[in-house]
Amino acid sequence: MAIVVQKYGGSSVGTVEKIKMVAQSIIKRKMNGDSLVVVVSAMGDTTDDLIDLAKQVTGNPDKRELDALLSTGEMISSSLLAMALKDLGHDAVSYTAYQIGIRTSGQYGKSLIDDIDESKIKESIDEGKIVIAAGFQGINEEGDITTLGRGGSDTTAVAIAVKLKGICEIYTDVDGIYSVDPRKYVKAKKLSEIDYEEMLELASLGAQVMHSRSVELGQKYGIPIYVGLSNSDIKGTVIREVTNVNMESKPVTGLATSDEDIAVTIQNISNDINVLSNLFEALASRRINIDMISQTSPVDEKVNISFTIPKEDLKECLGIVKNYADKNSINIDEDITKFSIVGIGMKTTSGVAAKMFKLFSGNNILVKMITTSEIRITCAIRQADKLKAINLIAEEFKL
Amino acid sequence: MAIVVQKYGGSSVGTVEKIKMVAQSIIKRKMNGDSLVVVVSAMGDTTDDLIDLAKQVTGNPDKRELDALLSTGEMISSSLLAMALKDLGHDAVSYTAYQIGIRTSGQYGKSLIDDIDESKIKESIDEGKIVIAAGFQGINEEGDITTLGRGGSDTTAVAIAVKLKGICEIYTDVDGIYSVDPRKYVKAKKLSEIDYEEMLELASLGAQVMHSRSVELGQKYGIPIYVGLSNSDIKGTVIREVTNVNMESKPVTGLATSDEDIAVTIQNISNDINVLSNLFEALASRRINIDMISQTSPVDEKVNISFTIPKEDLKECLGIVKNYADKNSINIDEDITKFSIVGIGMKTTSGVAAKMFKLFSGNNILVKMITTSEIRITCAIRQADKLKAINLIAEEFKL
Repeated sequence: MAIVVQKYGGSSVGTVEKIKMVAQSIIKRKMNGDSLVVVVSAMGDTTDDLIDLAKQVTGNPDKRELDALLSTGEMISSSLLAMALKDLGHDAVSYTAYQIGIRTSGQYGKSLIDDIDESKIKESIDEGKIVIAAGFQGINEEGDITTLGRGGSDTTAVAIAVKLKGICEIYTDVDGIYSVDPRKYVKAKKLSEIDYEEMLELASLGAQVMHSRSVELGQKYGIPIYVGLSNSDIKGTVIREVTNVNMESKPVTGLATSDEDIAVTIQNISNDINVLSNLFEALASRRINIDMISQTSPVDEKVNISFTIPKEDLKECLGIVKNYADKNSINIDEDITKFSIVGIGMKTTSGVAAKMFKLFSGNNILVKMITTSEIRITCAIRQADKLKAINLIAEEFKL
Repeated sequence: MAIVVQKYGGSSVGTVEKIKMVAQSIIKRKMNGDSLVVVVSAMGDTTDDLIDLAKQVTGNPDKRELDALLSTGEMISSSLLAMALKDLGHDAVSYTAYQIGIRTSGQYGKSLIDDIDESKIKESIDEGKIVIAAGFQGINEEGDITTLGRGGSDTTAVAIAVKLKGICEIYTDVDGIYSVDPRKYVKAKKLSEIDYEEMLELASLGAQVMHSRSVELGQKYGIPIYVGLSNSDIKGTVIREVTNVNMESKPVTGLATSDEDIAVTIQNISNDINVLSNLFEALASRRINIDMISQTSPVDEKVNISFTIPKEDLKECLGIVKNYADKNSINIDEDITKFSIVGIGMKTTSGVAAKMFKLFSGNNILVKMITTSEIRITCAIRQADKLKAINLIAEEFKL
């Protein structure tokens, strides 16, 4: 008998009818002889509605109080699901973060799970109960309610699976992980499995299926994570360590694009390492997330430097950059699509980058910036070239 | 510097605008130099909306889960109020029942407060913070969330005032306690003060202003409770021990009526004490709340017995009564208004009942049943006579 930790996302429990359907799925699974722990997100748009309510009170809601407010969304859905299960004759019990000791640290709104006291969950399982745990929330050292950030219920589920040495299943409104976003490339293929590293790269590139920290946690403790549709027999994708990387494996597993960034270029900035490190430290201290960085070779001890930042941070970024460079030497390029290919096969397959750049140059796709990791290549290209690039690369690497 | 425990009811925090107005009132009060602890109910109809949601899931929601669900209403309003206060530049912190150790026992949905760990509240007060406490909720020995019953936030406020040795103020949508419900008697007078006992009698008779248990708690620990309008300079009513009862005091303080009961009469039931006590024990075991009881003198060891019960319990009551009496000997009288006068002055003033019955008989008001306590006289009369009776008695006793 296995312990199965399932997570149902907000759209899966968006209405009372859907909650009842989820209850049926849970019972079906329990009838197989497994013990069930179920983590739920807030119903549908509840979290956004609560944020709206807070914004009506104040343009700048206190972060501690906002977390306390938002945590109610998952309490509502978890108690309703427990009621639905009991109504169908199966004993169930809902628990808040307090009740099962989900200890967190870090900032409000993006806390990290330090530990979970699994004893109460185990006790309830031993009593034959289906345990429903409110996702997305925790309690910090001060006893305050904190939340884990958008998608944080995924991380709650994986963390519970880690503590219970269980199987983890994430049910959502997509039927698995695709090599390319199917909305952008209709011929995209669903992956039966994907490595943690690949998933993390894809997630960081804007594939919003999973909360990145849940994947990291799964990787750290070796817990495979199934991602698929709720209430469906369609097979989803398993995120796990993929060890059989050989010459026959595909070098590229997935492709992701993002239009959320813009590029800032500073011309003729001093090539003094102190100047540059001070600039980037100042940006980091304001939590401006710099992604791609490229720098030209120094001429007269001056360099040109470009980097990308999230669009919404532009104003704050420019305020800082102005302390380091003349206004006239700062250029903004808003026409940026980050185009990335990911695959653990790149570790053993050479020539992937060359193939990509050759395809781009042969098709008039301008590459503005490049960054790479061991399993990823990212280019900044023009937004107008995005679809062409997706089709070229997806065809080439059979995604 | 006093510690003031204020409670704002659901209508006082029914909208974001109203929450902001409450925040202004709290700050005004704090500027006087007092320390503030504020207990809030759920916004407007939130509790009813949550009950509706549960009823959509199942006709018979699990009581533990229903309490967990309902407790979110007060968490939402308390965090929003704390945000509003912070937005106005005053440090504030919201606490759930868990966080300030509101320990309860008894049944879900109508738990009793056993104790409150006031240390966290005191600590926050010492830090200059306005403390917002979620009303209506507690945590029982099993660590489950429980609720205190409708109006339970009043009891939360008084209990906190008891622990902090503070002043208690209940703000609601009525401007105080009236001798008679002003909707039933337009000339009704507002009382500047009322004794705990009188308030309890009135509350049990259907005056819905206060949660009875909050008044009992105030009485037990000698905490005066102010009841009045929020955001208003209109003076309300103080519930306290009224000691200056003398010949010049009015013998009758208040009058209340209720149409929520019906009378059950059983004819020719055995006058065996075992039969009657078994009957009433059986009714009590099903939590059927019997109020007025009257019994005729025995004839041939048989008696007629009448008692009133809440209308909604009729079906269950008849199911039990049929085990003790022939179907044809059971009569139901649905035309019942319970008419009560209350006053601690009755302890020292005689002839109140005589005056009342004389007025009734002189005006063709049929008295069907009578019960009395030391400070209360209740008659069951016809519903059609209710307004006439209110006017006669209110005029006579200058209510």
